[in-house]
Amino acid sequence: MKIDVCFSPSLYRYYADNLDLIVVVTDIFRATSTICAAFRNGATAVIPVRSPEEAKAYKEKGHLVGGERNVKKFEFGDFGNSPSEYTAEKVKGREVVFSTTNGTRAIDEAAGCSCLIIGAFGNLSAIADYCLSQQKDVLVLCAGWKERFNMEDSLFGGALVEKLAAAGYNAAFDAAQVALSMWQEAKSDPLKYIQRSEHIKRLEANGLLDVVADCLAIDTTSVLPVYDKETKKITDCLYPTKPQSSQSILL
Amino acid sequence: MKIDVCFSPSLYRYYADNLDLIVVVTDIFRATSTICAAFRNGATAVIPVRSPEEAKAYKEKGHLVGGERNVKKFEFGDFGNSPSEYTAEKVKGREVVFSTTNGTRAIDEAAGCSCLIIGAFGNLSAIADYCLSQQKDVLVLCAGWKERFNMEDSLFGGALVEKLAAAGYNAAFDAAQVALSMWQEAKSDPLKYIQRSEHIKRLEANGLLDVVADCLAIDTTSVLPVYDKETKKITDCLYPTKPQSSQSILL
Repeated sequence: MKIDVCFSPSLYRYYADNLDLIVVVTDIFRATSTICAAFRNGATAVIPVRSPEEAKAYKEKGHLVGGERNVKKFEFGDFGNSPSEYTAEKVKGREVVFSTTNGTRAIDEAAGCSCLIIGAFGNLSAIADYCLSQQKDVLVLCAGWKERFNMEDSLFGGALVEKLAAAGYNAAFDAAQVALSMWQEAKSDPLKYIQRSEHIKRLEANGLLDVVADCLAIDTTSVLPVYDKETKKITDCLYPTKPQSSQSILL
Repeated sequence: MKIDVCFSPSLYRYYADNLDLIVVVTDIFRATSTICAAFRNGATAVIPVRSPEEAKAYKEKGHLVGGERNVKKFEFGDFGNSPSEYTAEKVKGREVVFSTTNGTRAIDEAAGCSCLIIGAFGNLSAIADYCLSQQKDVLVLCAGWKERFNMEDSLFGGALVEKLAAAGYNAAFDAAQVALSMWQEAKSDPLKYIQRSEHIKRLEANGLLDVVADCLAIDTTSVLPVYDKETKKITDCLYPTKPQSSQSILL
């Protein structure tokens, strides 16, 4: 088994050399951190859509809609793209339609793979445990920023590489090794490390710095959001080896 | 002025946001290291071509032809893709047609920019001095491996970031910062650092490990290979601020 990291949705086709692959899509600031929060708080499904127009059409049909473009919340939306907005009061038992600058783009790119899961620091160990239970090759797909490399998603890739390499996965690939080095440099203080990133400036300019600590907090939930290519929905998959009680304990 | 690093030719369009940009194309193992060696030894021009078929057509018309596909030398070629093959005896006063797996692909991708130069560890300081003399934004375009991220080209990017940031360039971009961290980790012993890379295994499998030290040696030449989009040739540009005697001293 191997694990590698793909730094941009535009590069996905060059990394997905195996159809029987687990693809872990990550967009730390903020889409996948927010999706994990929505499931932690009881959402029944997240419906990722590519365009703001699609999101608006869902809103007009009565759906809850969240997301952003260029860090700014849709004017028609119920939520933006911060984990703390998706409270149990608002999302428990509900489906949420969701569209973001990079996260839903990355999900769309990898939608054809055999297993697409949503990863964030919040469910890092749940993701690692799931991968180990499946014993398949793993590719972390970083959403990046408008197809560019970004620091925070690669850092998550490094954190997952560390866990799977420790369990015997082959991570002897250039991107995986560099992501691992980043994580090893950052892990004693990820909040400090990430101050150098471009996204911090975007969040700051939009008054959103309070989300940073939420998005970097590790293992705050055991949700395992899985994309179903038939229904085009993401649901929390309580896979067989996952303790059935863990979600309620963590909530 | 700013400097950033683009990790793959497939991402170039997302980084080249400025037409008046210096693009430094790098393919450390081995195309750009080899191009620098050819000029150091007196080649008058390198003609990069995309396909082996084009290279073969040039050979049939009597040109000197070098290059490789998937690390292996063309069976019809005069040279492979190792710096040591391009001796003064063979290339002095001659044009060389050149096609490689990644390097000529990257040159082709950036061919439309206002200034495309060829960078390698061998001409690192010459490249840095040229950029500083021009006072323009700089983008390092890593050739990578078949569109994927690679370690050695990113490492060169970090080395150039270090030099230009020290001279006041803005390098506060995620890819530039990560490349710089890689270089800071590697620079006391680049040969050791690069042992982790995928390309080392490819070179080893093809009996080419002897090129690694050549390709990582810093400032062995002051050549400044520049691509001319009109003639589609690369020539060594003795730009005005470059000491005219430096090339002969370094040879």
